[in-house]
Amino acid sequence: MSQSSPTLPQILKRSLVASSRFFKIEALQLKFSNGQQREFERMQGYHKGAVLIVPFYDPQTLLLIREYAAGTHSYEIGFPKGLIDSGETAEQAANRELKEEIGFGAKRLQKLKTVTMAPSYFSSEMTLFMAFDLYPEKLEGDEPEPLEVIKWPLNKVDELLARDDFQEARGISALLLTLKALNEA
Amino acid sequence: MSQSSPTLPQILKRSLVASSRFFKIEALQLKFSNGQQREFERMQGYHKGAVLIVPFYDPQTLLLIREYAAGTHSYEIGFPKGLIDSGETAEQAANRELKEEIGFGAKRLQKLKTVTMAPSYFSSEMTLFMAFDLYPEKLEGDEPEPLEVIKWPLNKVDELLARDDFQEARGISALLLTLKALNEA
Repeated sequence: MSQSSPTLPQILKRSLVASSRFFKIEALQLKFSNGQQREFERMQGYHKGAVLIVPFYDPQTLLLIREYAAGTHSYEIGFPKGLIDSGETAEQAANRELKEEIGFGAKRLQKLKTVTMAPSYFSSEMTLFMAFDLYPEKLEGDEPEPLEVIKWPLNKVDELLARDDFQEARGISALLLTLKALNEA
Repeated sequence: MSQSSPTLPQILKRSLVASSRFFKIEALQLKFSNGQQREFERMQGYHKGAVLIVPFYDPQTLLLIREYAAGTHSYEIGFPKGLIDSGETAEQAANRELKEEIGFGAKRLQKLKTVTMAPSYFSSEMTLFMAFDLYPEKLEGDEPEPLEVIKWPLNKVDELLARDDFQEARGISALLLTLKALNEA
């Protein structure tokens, strides 16, 4: 691997080509360092980022939620997650989402890693956390229906990974990074 | 966890609200089983899906690529990946992408899991593979510049996971599922 970072392509032109209530799509006219020019499209991300949290109900049990996902029109099992609000740190957002989605706050959050979804097309970043020392506290969320909260034993993680409704790569990354952190602790 | 799968919301109306060369955004008017109505937006996915491949150069060495990512306007390290073309199986697409992006075909592919990116907003699915028994074969890709191919020793995977330019959740999932499969083999 070359030591030097490659020279970034030059952005000759940026233009908004489509937008809706939630999404903005931008076309980039790029000139690569070898002279090649191409037009790429990308989605403008929510610049404050998002969080996803692996909550420990006790040292042997994780908490998951089951929630409707419009993209796949299916109910999916996953971890609490959400966007970072204006004025919040990632940790504050994580604690708020835990209170809204599973009815617990966390006395201790440990960062796993910041991840992207598909960096070729999206800028959105999500910070993954583990949450320990939970205490009951409920905040009202904006969900159209109550979320189902599921206790999942750590020793049944293979069954979770094999499920067709546990598919989101950011949640899988968080789970496997959690197992790695526990193994190395 | 309740045994029965929840009743899916009813899609009262679907409409295309924005589109560009690559993206199509759809608004869904939904009625949940408790009577609540909401409008959700989602991106129409490429319905044939995509593949990502963890290629083993030898039993102790993975192959990675370094490539420009327009979404983050940065060079990112990751695994070969791409869309499944019309008429291809996921395995055929994986082999073609390997030939285009790293100059090798694979005699043996092993499926790890099918993952989603963010199922609340996107339907796109990606199948993750490990690739073994590589042989040299180069196909021309459509990249604007040659991709840098990087040999990464398996015993330095922690350094890879710690890098700020190895961030894509689908690639992290593939790497950690690979380590898990190797540990259990």
